Amino acid sequence: MASPSSLSPPEVPMELHVVNRKKLLDSFRDHLSLSSRPLHGFIFLQGGEEQNRHCTDHIELFRQESYFSYLFGVQEPGFYGAIDLASGDSILFAPRLPAEYAVWLGEIKPLSHFKERYMVSSVYYTDEITKVLHQQYQGPGKPLLYLLHGLNTDSNNFSKPADFKGIDNFETDLNDLHPILTECRVLKSALEFAVIQFANDISSEAHVEVMRKTKAGMKEYQLESLFLHHTYMYGGCRHCSYTCICATGSNSSTLHYGHAAAPNDRILEDGDMALLDMGAEYHCYGSDITCSFPVNGKFTVDQSLVYNAVLRAHDAVISNMRPGVSWVDMHKLAERIILESLKEGDLLLGDVDAMVQERVGAVFLPHGLGHLLGIDTHDPGGYLKGAERPKEPGLKSLRTSRELLEGMVITVEPGCYFIDALLLPAMKNAQTSKFFNHEQISKFRGFGGVRIESDVFVTGDGCVNMTKCPREIKEIEAVMAGAPWPINKSVIPSLNSNP
Amino acid sequence: MASPSSLSPPEVPMELHVVNRKKLLDSFRDHLSLSSRPLHGFIFLQGGEEQNRHCTDHIELFRQESYFSYLFGVQEPGFYGAIDLASGDSILFAPRLPAEYAVWLGEIKPLSHFKERYMVSSVYYTDEITKVLHQQYQGPGKPLLYLLHGLNTDSNNFSKPADFKGIDNFETDLNDLHPILTECRVLKSALEFAVIQFANDISSEAHVEVMRKTKAGMKEYQLESLFLHHTYMYGGCRHCSYTCICATGSNSSTLHYGHAAAPNDRILEDGDMALLDMGAEYHCYGSDITCSFPVNGKFTVDQSLVYNAVLRAHDAVISNMRPGVSWVDMHKLAERIILESLKEGDLLLGDVDAMVQERVGAVFLPHGLGHLLGIDTHDPGGYLKGAERPKEPGLKSLRTSRELLEGMVITVEPGCYFIDALLLPAMKNAQTSKFFNHEQISKFRGFGGVRIESDVFVTGDGCVNMTKCPREIKEIEAVMAGAPWPINKSVIPSLNSNP
Ligand SMILES: [Mn+2]
Ligand SMILES: [Mn+2]
Repeated sequence: MASPSSLSPPEVPMELHVVNRKKLLDSFRDHLSLSSRPLHGFIFLQGGEEQNRHCTDHIELFRQESYFSYLFGVQEPGFYGAIDLASGDSILFAPRLPAEYAVWLGEIKPLSHFKERYMVSSVYYTDEITKVLHQQYQGPGKPLLYLLHGLNTDSNNFSKPADFKGIDNFETDLNDLHPILTECRVLKSALEFAVIQFANDISSEAHVEVMRKTKAGMKEYQLESLFLHHTYMYGGCRHCSYTCICATGSNSSTLHYGHAAAPNDRILEDGDMALLDMGAEYHCYGSDITCSFPVNGKFTVDQSLVYNAVLRAHDAVISNMRPGVSWVDMHKLAERIILESLKEGDLLLGDVDAMVQERVGAVFLPHGLGHLLGIDTHDPGGYLKGAERPKEPGLKSLRTSRELLEGMVITVEPGCYFIDALLLPAMKNAQTSKFFNHEQISKFRGFGGVRIESDVFVTGDGCVNMTKCPREIKEIEAVMAGAPWPINKSVIPSLNSNP
Repeated sequence: MASPSSLSPPEVPMELHVVNRKKLLDSFRDHLSLSSRPLHGFIFLQGGEEQNRHCTDHIELFRQESYFSYLFGVQEPGFYGAIDLASGDSILFAPRLPAEYAVWLGEIKPLSHFKERYMVSSVYYTDEITKVLHQQYQGPGKPLLYLLHGLNTDSNNFSKPADFKGIDNFETDLNDLHPILTECRVLKSALEFAVIQFANDISSEAHVEVMRKTKAGMKEYQLESLFLHHTYMYGGCRHCSYTCICATGSNSSTLHYGHAAAPNDRILEDGDMALLDMGAEYHCYGSDITCSFPVNGKFTVDQSLVYNAVLRAHDAVISNMRPGVSWVDMHKLAERIILESLKEGDLLLGDVDAMVQERVGAVFLPHGLGHLLGIDTHDPGGYLKGAERPKEPGLKSLRTSRELLEGMVITVEPGCYFIDALLLPAMKNAQTSKFFNHEQISKFRGFGGVRIESDVFVTGDGCVNMTKCPREIKEIEAVMAGAPWPINKSVIPSLNSNP
């Protein structure tokens, strides 16, 4: 049997993290110079630790903390890392493992292994942090540690600054590092781009595999299982970027379906739309992809109407993306196209400008158009310090209001949902009731929703769509009927003439 | 194509948790009566909460805390639960979800849904705990809450007692609940047995599927992916009991291989042994199964020697298990059989009694023979309060030293490993050097190890092996060559005569 994948997991060069550290070092030195501060002290981060489940000895599979991963790429738990602002040296601190580790958990690797593997200047044990950094420090007084502390604007949580026994022997600064390091993460290097592209390639291929195997009578979680298996088996992706959302029928209007309280457990029915939001992660870099398609492989007229509204928005945004464009404007563009399409489809009535004014778009598209993507699915840096979040419905859900910059990777994920909790109040509301064709729209209650999500890289003069899934209705129907993907375009018409 | 599974996920009756609560209530009332204490107050537990990854909004897939799962079977995060010692009523407290939940995360279910689903007496919101329990309480003074606090003897962590706003309005007791509830978990009911049996059935089948697909040139994690896919796709098992250990070649002597720092990433080679320790979890009840087999499907003479040593130990222990038998004795039995087999195989020399005396067994079998299994892989209750852990090498790793009781589910997992860190010192040691055939044993350095692990239920007069994997060398070779499983025994001889 031919392999169902044309891909195999690439080796990720650790130069990627050397470049990331260099970028941070340059930015940080510039920042200190600008405020006439001395170029000494250390950028100092703590890596993640393995977590036990409650009081048990069950250990959750470890995945590195994202900022630490960005700078050092270390896959093992329990490390610390420093960058010397004076010399530029990178120093890792590895946990000193007990002798039993060799019996239970594996080879105790020498420090030289980590030095070579992670391409740092030197490696010591974590119980040597104080001694080593004091020796290395050239400035006056206690050595200064710049620690990571700042707000994540998606979670509203603060990152936890590094802590270790002996930190009292250092001066610490909690203000300078977070905004600069976060901004470094916003613009992806060529090496980072390549990893995100691989995560996209294997995930796109897995989405196609899932589409082909989807049939009425299956359980939603079987689609998740197919995706997870394809990306791990052929892509070496042990983690996903986020819990798979495998929503069918009316579940597809639950934006973040799939978690433990709504666990992808519905049986697929003939006539359902499926909305599958699934993305694999590779070397801690993610992908975030949504495909929507009919479970039975053939779009109805109603499904086509909603699907094409979203696809037109998705395509229009991508054609307009380039450095300098405001993401808020892109959201508004998507919203307007969806409203126009629904009006053309006879679901909405009246003046689209007036609808926009009354925020009718947010009834159908209540989430933001997209978000920065990288080591986190919702990569940090969406709101610069002091930037205000828009307040209007729909826009307030945007995870960034920034202008696009060359090097950003951002998701484009317009959607159109029929959510009773939003639709019914808007249809009753005196200001907005008139825009709805009540009779027509009532047929779409229970339809669920459509989302189309691609990961897009902003170039110097435009953008590149990194996601490679069938998007046109013809393409989806052809692929679900067994056509190869990517489709040989000349073949589509004949495939399309099949019953 | 025929389904590769004969199984499908069963409905788990919530009576299972009704029975669990009744058992605890009876035990706890007996306990109070014995010390002449009044039968009022509440057993009170806090369920688990979803966890964010570090400062991000990435939420790990939630899996219920094990004690809470035992009593209430609730799959959703953020609950509390109480059992009224006076009336026997069970009360759940559900989180009050904000209106946006309906848009982002799904239907906000009414309290009546949880009452019906989880078969409890009543359900309120978590912000009503103080009010409800004060109303319900019949005794004098402040209502008394029996909270969960005690040592997990596998992790050495303490369970965290329930906490909530308003707990100051209650008397609390931290001592009584943990040992009694833990002891309830030790003996499985018929309903619990059935769930653990299903976890075993689907995992056994998945192990066979993996065996059949294993080939040189694959990566270890591909075996993990095949297992995960089979148990989720056909068994609805979204979680595993523990991180899969897919160890091949010399990795198979690392007892807990497969974690993030040793992530199942080796390429399988012709001639390797594979040691796969993988078990799926269903409705929070686990399985824990290890199969060892040659990657190329044919045992060499050396592989057979080690494998059969372990299999003889595995089978002998199971034939001897019944209520009243000491688990320490079973460990010693396994150890002795392995030593005898290695002596027969010319790897060891001299008197086996003397080897036992010098703890040579622990060189080859450094871990415990097995552990209680249930909602946790290492289910609690292995050491009763005051029980001492044995101190000798090998025996000190036992997760229980108890006598077997009817209703226990315990793993039987003897192993034989060639671990340089243990073998080389023992071969040099003046007391033990003489037992080793140095020339012969040196051929086995790098061999790795063999483990055979089954989950065994202790009955009134013996035990039942719940695991259904090919165990005999002939069976394994036949199944890997394509024979059906379970094998039609009469077919084996002819299959076996194949080249
Ligand atoms: Mn997204
Ligand atoms: Mn085990």
